[in-house]
Amino acid sequence: MALETARLLIFCADARGIIAAVTGFIAEYDGNILEADQHTDPQHGEFFMRVEVELDGFRLNRNTFAAAWGPVAQRYGMRWRVYWGNEVKRMAILVSKESHCLSDLLWRWRTGELRVEIPFVLGNHAELREPVDAAGIRFYHLPVTPGSKAEQEAKVRALLKAARVDFIVLARYMQILAPSFVAEYPERIINIHHSFLPAFVGPKPYQQAYDRGVKIIGATSHYVTDQLDQGPIVAQSTLPVGHRDTVEDLVRKGRDLERVVLATAVRLHVEDKILVSQNKTIVFD
Amino acid sequence: MALETARLLIFCADARGIIAAVTGFIAEYDGNILEADQHTDPQHGEFFMRVEVELDGFRLNRNTFAAAWGPVAQRYGMRWRVYWGNEVKRMAILVSKESHCLSDLLWRWRTGELRVEIPFVLGNHAELREPVDAAGIRFYHLPVTPGSKAEQEAKVRALLKAARVDFIVLARYMQILAPSFVAEYPERIINIHHSFLPAFVGPKPYQQAYDRGVKIIGATSHYVTDQLDQGPIVAQSTLPVGHRDTVEDLVRKGRDLERVVLATAVRLHVEDKILVSQNKTIVFD
Amino acid sequence: MALETARLLIFCADARGIIAAVTGFIAEYDGNILEADQHTDPQHGEFFMRVEVELDGFRLNRNTFAAAWGPVAQRYGMRWRVYWGNEVKRMAILVSKESHCLSDLLWRWRTGELRVEIPFVLGNHAELREPVDAAGIRFYHLPVTPGSKAEQEAKVRALLKAARVDFIVLARYMQILAPSFVAEYPERIINIHHSFLPAFVGPKPYQQAYDRGVKIIGATSHYVTDQLDQGPIVAQSTLPVGHRDTVEDLVRKGRDLERVVLATAVRLHVEDKILVSQNKTIVFD
Amino acid sequence: MALETARLLIFCADARGIIAAVTGFIAEYDGNILEADQHTDPQHGEFFMRVEVELDGFRLNRNTFAAAWGPVAQRYGMRWRVYWGNEVKRMAILVSKESHCLSDLLWRWRTGELRVEIPFVLGNHAELREPVDAAGIRFYHLPVTPGSKAEQEAKVRALLKAARVDFIVLARYMQILAPSFVAEYPERIINIHHSFLPAFVGPKPYQQAYDRGVKIIGATSHYVTDQLDQGPIVAQSTLPVGHRDTVEDLVRKGRDLERVVLATAVRLHVEDKILVSQNKTIVFD
Repeated sequence: MALETARLLIFCADARGIIAAVTGFIAEYDGNILEADQHTDPQHGEFFMRVEVELDGFRLNRNTFAAAWGPVAQRYGMRWRVYWGNEVKRMAILVSKESHCLSDLLWRWRTGELRVEIPFVLGNHAELREPVDAAGIRFYHLPVTPGSKAEQEAKVRALLKAARVDFIVLARYMQILAPSFVAEYPERIINIHHSFLPAFVGPKPYQQAYDRGVKIIGATSHYVTDQLDQGPIVAQSTLPVGHRDTVEDLVRKGRDLERVVLATAVRLHVEDKILVSQNKTIVFD
Repeated sequence: MALETARLLIFCADARGIIAAVTGFIAEYDGNILEADQHTDPQHGEFFMRVEVELDGFRLNRNTFAAAWGPVAQRYGMRWRVYWGNEVKRMAILVSKESHCLSDLLWRWRTGELRVEIPFVLGNHAELREPVDAAGIRFYHLPVTPGSKAEQEAKVRALLKAARVDFIVLARYMQILAPSFVAEYPERIINIHHSFLPAFVGPKPYQQAYDRGVKIIGATSHYVTDQLDQGPIVAQSTLPVGHRDTVEDLVRKGRDLERVVLATAVRLHVEDKILVSQNKTIVFD
Repeated sequence: MALETARLLIFCADARGIIAAVTGFIAEYDGNILEADQHTDPQHGEFFMRVEVELDGFRLNRNTFAAAWGPVAQRYGMRWRVYWGNEVKRMAILVSKESHCLSDLLWRWRTGELRVEIPFVLGNHAELREPVDAAGIRFYHLPVTPGSKAEQEAKVRALLKAARVDFIVLARYMQILAPSFVAEYPERIINIHHSFLPAFVGPKPYQQAYDRGVKIIGATSHYVTDQLDQGPIVAQSTLPVGHRDTVEDLVRKGRDLERVVLATAVRLHVEDKILVSQNKTIVFD
Repeated sequence: MALETARLLIFCADARGIIAAVTGFIAEYDGNILEADQHTDPQHGEFFMRVEVELDGFRLNRNTFAAAWGPVAQRYGMRWRVYWGNEVKRMAILVSKESHCLSDLLWRWRTGELRVEIPFVLGNHAELREPVDAAGIRFYHLPVTPGSKAEQEAKVRALLKAARVDFIVLARYMQILAPSFVAEYPERIINIHHSFLPAFVGPKPYQQAYDRGVKIIGATSHYVTDQLDQGPIVAQSTLPVGHRDTVEDLVRKGRDLERVVLATAVRLHVEDKILVSQNKTIVFD
């Protein structure tokens, strides 16, 4: 995607004429629409829209947009956000001991496939320091002990704040975040769960899958909410398995699923393609 | 999809303001847009759009639409088609001896999943008369012999014309149609090819796949053009296979692929979700 | 599979030399082994084997096999079953109102893909009588009312017994069978559940999937046990879905999954390719 | 797979009693068979077998096996190979500029998932030196110019020989090897082709796929023969694409396919699970 763009995300009650109002507004300011996606949830009467406008030629910018756009937004009672193409999001990665998701994200970042800044990677274990160092990224090691969980989390949050982080990726970070932490980053914490949710909620999903004798395993990437493993699902993928697969085989096959599913969710988030409503995602891909 | 709708398909050179012009026009006549999809092909500078409008409340109908819409279409040099929801397309099915695709289409038709009229099924063999009779549909048997191909085809075309057929499904009809026949139904003849095109063009694709030792087989549904197996692809699907699979196993597994892929293509065609350009399809699903 | 074969299924505690003992026995009686699959569950120390022997040239038959084989089986404490190729299994189908699985099974049976005898189809509703009649198969209508469930089930069991049924397919039969019924047909009742088990146990799984906002739906075929939706899984398949899919779309897409998954499980059962242990299946396909 | 094992691969004309002879031989020397897979190609009358025997307790080793086994092999005219578990294969990787397959293999090697020694990585470009250095592996840069191809290849072959390499992985090495090179490593050079072969043979397969408008892309891993892209296929995988995907999107999505497909083929090769006949693979997985 070579062109610099503005991405406008809209969410309001459904009504006639919204698309015309939005696209008419863009046209009025000479914007070239590269993509326009919309969705109506007939059950809840909600309207969702994503418009991507080429910056070149568009007679609005981050300073002038809100004033011009305000009346349209007001008329329809819209909640909206706009992202400007030359802004690069700041992504922190939290890890424990497993390297596959972290290595994958770092590789995509190094090759330019994933366009973010990574101010730091933070582990509650020190095992993954090396690949982070090798990538020239700061690594923080903040261990968690039974008594120090609240304290550790306070430090994590301070680091995130100091680094002005836009969103957080839990790349197999095996800690549950406090509700107040989650509340600070609504729809901005992305987790990878190593099962096809809602099957096998909680710990050791591959062992659970093995014990149940499923013929397919999966991985699920979702936004974190204060309900464990219940947040809105962004991406999922599955893979066939059989009776010859041991738990270790499921874990190995699962790693290949997990890293691709997590990378997909991160890419969608970075490209501002996700809207959330009713604990579900609308993904405009 | 319970609501009666009009579907407007548009195809023109890309320009600023098209979406606003189209959606503004709909809004002007109080139309409620249920879906609006658009696509720009940056390589060829082409613009494609599909708009689905609720009939209820829309102040245009099949008699008044063209006059109102004409100026907009003209301004942008659009090629366009509009389909009105209460029109049911007339679909003829051509078959040879294999029943799986035919049976599947008839089942979807009987249960109301596939909303078409089927004026007749025509076979160059008589084997499939029975399920067609049982469905209460007219069956024509028009055999092809080396000397009678042109003559048979003329009869087929006469029957299609007499029945005012909108589109034709080749449900494993093992005959190649003459270019003049194909030209009469541009983007209106749907074929199922029993391979993942462009691999294994031509006859006996499963034998070819077996001989090549592929680990995956596929099926492809495409519009028929006068280039054998080269028409625009509408839908494809694949399935893993292994060294234990004989040619007969590939044929059996392939049948499950073929009928679903063909049914998908037919559904997309019936719902007016396919545009064609540069021998490729844009599928707004 | 043109050749007539005997299929020997074996289940015992793991020990050295079992495979040699079994294949040596077959060789001693001039049997040609077409397929030999075995599996060892290291966790439970269990050994599973399936051997398929060409009948032609094999110097044992259904009358003489047990006496010859007995000592081998005894030495290793085997549980075993043998199926002779010229026996055709008798399959009853139980249905309610949904036709897709029934129609699919009947089509596979008519074309010879599924090699069974179908003594009858039984519905607790009368809706599906017509396709069964058309196939020349007996249809029983035994409605269930709140007060008559036990009585109806007794009649169903009497019919199954009278027809000497080998196994039962619940092709979207929306009734829960009594434990005593299930106990009479261990590993011989095949159900199709319209979700990726263990996700969405119980009724209305597509509504549950829609409400949860999953990006993939599935279907699961399993043997029925007296734990609802908890029996050993035989086959599963999944399909991607998105935010545009309504519950109705999930149901429609699910039908295509369900019938293929159920047909796969039925084929595996008919070919004697399934062993069960620890509530899990070993599928030798 | 924690246990040390011997893997015996057998290939001969089909005959009665082979499995009994092989497994009887193993039992005679107190070997515990962990896996036994066999396959008969009825078309060519060929028999293939793979037996994995626990080393613990087995009364044969690499010095004594051949003498004991010889008579059995001779009786059935077997071609055979045996691999001893404590031998680690030596794998060279050849690359050009693309890093995704290389990075993936190095990651699997570092984490112990891929159990090989990597004496060196060799590039005809220097771009990928850094990750190889970081992994502590020797990197050779041997550029190819129009005039120097034969000379460069001679050097490559000398390095492979000096390093006693067991097999070679072409991880997006964009050079065609000379027939004499290929002949030196029969069934020991693994290539990844970025399409679903046999579709899109030759260069720029994603551009070809884009131009053809396919709805699915694929990747194929195969052994290299002197017919370009025609060697026996080991593994394949596919992914859905749509009209919105640019060539760049296909390339990006394809990378995720390629690295997993290549890693699968390498794992199968390392675990001695592949036999080749008639330019096709038998994969005992």
